[in-house]
Amino acid sequence: MIVKDRLYINSINRFQIVDITPYINEKIKKSQIYSGIINVFTKHTTSAIIINENEKGLQTDIFNILYDLIPDGNRYSHDMIDHNAGSHLRSLFLGPSETIPIYEGSLDLGRWQSVFFIELDGPRSRRQVDLTIMGD
Amino acid sequence: MIVKDRLYINSINRFQIVDITPYINEKIKKSQIYSGIINVFTKHTTSAIIINENEKGLQTDIFNILYDLIPDGNRYSHDMIDHNAGSHLRSLFLGPSETIPIYEGSLDLGRWQSVFFIELDGPRSRRQVDLTIMGD
Amino acid sequence: MIVKDRLYINSINRFQIVDITPYINEKIKKSQIYSGIINVFTKHTTSAIIINENEKGLQTDIFNILYDLIPDGNRYSHDMIDHNAGSHLRSLFLGPSETIPIYEGSLDLGRWQSVFFIELDGPRSRRQVDLTIMGD
Repeated sequence: MIVKDRLYINSINRFQIVDITPYINEKIKKSQIYSGIINVFTKHTTSAIIINENEKGLQTDIFNILYDLIPDGNRYSHDMIDHNAGSHLRSLFLGPSETIPIYEGSLDLGRWQSVFFIELDGPRSRRQVDLTIMGD
Repeated sequence: MIVKDRLYINSINRFQIVDITPYINEKIKKSQIYSGIINVFTKHTTSAIIINENEKGLQTDIFNILYDLIPDGNRYSHDMIDHNAGSHLRSLFLGPSETIPIYEGSLDLGRWQSVFFIELDGPRSRRQVDLTIMGD
Repeated sequence: MIVKDRLYINSINRFQIVDITPYINEKIKKSQIYSGIINVFTKHTTSAIIINENEKGLQTDIFNILYDLIPDGNRYSHDMIDHNAGSHLRSLFLGPSETIPIYEGSLDLGRWQSVFFIELDGPRSRRQVDLTIMGD
């Protein structure tokens, strides 16, 4: 069985990490799929989907390391088109999706794992994250 | 339903970004799968599959950031075996595959998203990208 | 058809790269799935799943580049909670899973590709890697 659904996210800062785990679990429950996988896919080239621990300090560390490795600045070619090359490059290294096991009707994550949408070029309204749920 | 197909890519430069979106869509159309997911998987350890915006300047920026963070040079151990350690390490950070939603018989991408094969150690002939299409 | 299985890995060093290709192939064989995909998913936020070449020198290079780009040190906020922020950040860039084609009852990898579990915060016992095998 295949069920498609969608999350919409409004971001309020340029950089923002949003824990979307509970919203995904609601959609899996609604799908009535008990066992399988889910593909969580952001439709935007200046955002990302990641999995890690939900801890405030770690979110600061993620922001700092991304800007240390890929600083803003006017040395990017894409900045002549649209002033957000750094946002695109940070999204490139994090990736647009995660494919995650489902078991017993919810995300089968480890104890310290949460699923996050990362806004890299906000604030934006109605950022779209598509969910494809496949299983029995 | 599961359909398997394949793309072959000939690269002409050491570093090259190839937009494979239209070729993937042709294969999905041929598969007659309307809704589901596709796994796009490169079979080579010095290449990658990514999703981002198709804009010329951004491709220059991707090249520059990859070589800034992971420069060529003779400090790599693998260079004693095969002189392409940098290519392997760049592919490690980008990843060998993307799993992408399918809807209405084609890739269900956002407005600015394209799927790219990145050659990191060309020129090479017949680079192989495997497609696994699953759905209804 | 969907089959779920699991690998347990005991790591003996802080940083360790473990080739899990043969163990995954055993589980695919046991599942009797001939063609499809497998999702290989680590349940831990200080580990990763990657695909690259199994060559000793390259493993040294992977260690060095990860510590060059994301050094240990006391500048991380998460280190005040748990002294392993660097391990979390390294796992963030490598990612927790790979989705891989299956064909003829085993991983359909390229000639030089192996699947690795990367321990980023060992030694640990019974690290859990979940396998979701889908196909016919």
